[in-house]
Amino acid sequence: MPRSGNSIRIGITGVPGVGKSTFIETFGKYLTSIGKKLAVLAVDPSSELSKGSILGDKTRMEELSIDPQAFIRPSPSGLTLGGVARKTRETIILCEAAGFDAILIETVGVGQSETLVKSMVDFFLLLMLSGAGDELQGIKRGIMEMADALIITKADGDNIAKATAAKALYTSALQLFPKNENGWRPPVDTCSVFLQDSIEKIWNIIADFENQTKANGFFLKHRAEQSVKTFYEWMNDMLKEHFYSNAIIENKINDLIADIKAGKVSPYKAGTELVQLTTNH
Amino acid sequence: MPRSGNSIRIGITGVPGVGKSTFIETFGKYLTSIGKKLAVLAVDPSSELSKGSILGDKTRMEELSIDPQAFIRPSPSGLTLGGVARKTRETIILCEAAGFDAILIETVGVGQSETLVKSMVDFFLLLMLSGAGDELQGIKRGIMEMADALIITKADGDNIAKATAAKALYTSALQLFPKNENGWRPPVDTCSVFLQDSIEKIWNIIADFENQTKANGFFLKHRAEQSVKTFYEWMNDMLKEHFYSNAIIENKINDLIADIKAGKVSPYKAGTELVQLTTNH
Repeated sequence: MPRSGNSIRIGITGVPGVGKSTFIETFGKYLTSIGKKLAVLAVDPSSELSKGSILGDKTRMEELSIDPQAFIRPSPSGLTLGGVARKTRETIILCEAAGFDAILIETVGVGQSETLVKSMVDFFLLLMLSGAGDELQGIKRGIMEMADALIITKADGDNIAKATAAKALYTSALQLFPKNENGWRPPVDTCSVFLQDSIEKIWNIIADFENQTKANGFFLKHRAEQSVKTFYEWMNDMLKEHFYSNAIIENKINDLIADIKAGKVSPYKAGTELVQLTTNH
Repeated sequence: MPRSGNSIRIGITGVPGVGKSTFIETFGKYLTSIGKKLAVLAVDPSSELSKGSILGDKTRMEELSIDPQAFIRPSPSGLTLGGVARKTRETIILCEAAGFDAILIETVGVGQSETLVKSMVDFFLLLMLSGAGDELQGIKRGIMEMADALIITKADGDNIAKATAAKALYTSALQLFPKNENGWRPPVDTCSVFLQDSIEKIWNIIADFENQTKANGFFLKHRAEQSVKTFYEWMNDMLKEHFYSNAIIENKINDLIADIKAGKVSPYKAGTELVQLTTNH
């Protein structure tokens, strides 16, 4: 893990249609053009069910996928949520050991991917569409408050006025949110993959964040905290897996849930009974 | 638990200074005046440390505390977070069995009390102060998105203009949030304990919510889901307690955390090792 301190881990999220792949393709090409070695990873907890899509992420990023300075890896598939997290965290470390200096982690699909990606990155970028009125309808609750920057995509041509209006709207909405613990005030900006300047600006925001949080000590402290949290989460996951996969528990749990829903037994009484079946006290 | 279906469980939260006790006193007096039997419970997870305040909540609600139709109980103290949750949930059931039809559960102090109270109520009321610019500075992230209604307090005298402006601001901010799963769009309003109308209006909002969610089936479904969630949380808490209080684990965990923070060992490797000490596989 010795080289991991030199990299920046960037999470990227946004609703379908926001232009995530196109953004990553353009942003990624810009990063390699300024001499960065770039890894693009994807996190898709739903691949637990779908066992991964056959169309890889590479087909969505034609130019970046043939760039020798870039490495693109689709979401690990066929794993539980904890398994996807573990594989992705380990890949981050591997990429950093191999000398990659920017790691983009893209959320894919629905589910808990945003929280998971947030827990493994230094900087979390939320891409948003401009639009009338209910822009946020597609965004899950709490996502806006996780963002370190909010970028309105497709701000070109006829869309510029709408995007600029959306920027003003989100800027005032974000002012209502409490300050981040790291002292960082998430900026709102517009971008277009056709305007190089707007792509460069986003990298400058991230560089500012890195400088500021490295100067105030938050950067490394945050990473250490993420690791300790991972440690506890992993142990708690294993404890639960061990318990809920026990045949005695599997046999009884559904009947108890039905009784709880019907108000026949208190959740505390039922829970205590079950746990006592596998522990000594 | 047979009578619990006839009650409404209302959570009330807000930063210190918002006038929570005065609001509950006035709102409670209004409820008893229209014939409701009212229980006021408090949830203060920090009482785990402080072992409860000596000044009871009753002293903060002088009139309500002598109202024969009202029952006020301070936060259970000297318990863990899970213990406070359990005691409070059991008290709710007891109050309902005793024929109380409105249960107010007030968050006290800092910490995780909002999430805890949200998990045990039908309706979650967020009280807010009007003020210039950074009204939300004192509100924790995510709280606004939990609210079923947002009420700006102290909207009287010189404060009316400020409160009305705050109402407009929050109304447009809330429109940016995604819709609740129950189809309810949280209203924003102002209130003053000196204006009976404004207090009555809040009760009408809650009654509307109750009618709407009972009609669409969400009300009882939500309670059943809360119980099942409590069941799992309680079991998971017990599993963790059992594990982390094990002397073998207690002996090793701090050294491992130091190694993880220093990047000497991966959180996964360390976690797997620890868990294997107490389980068979």
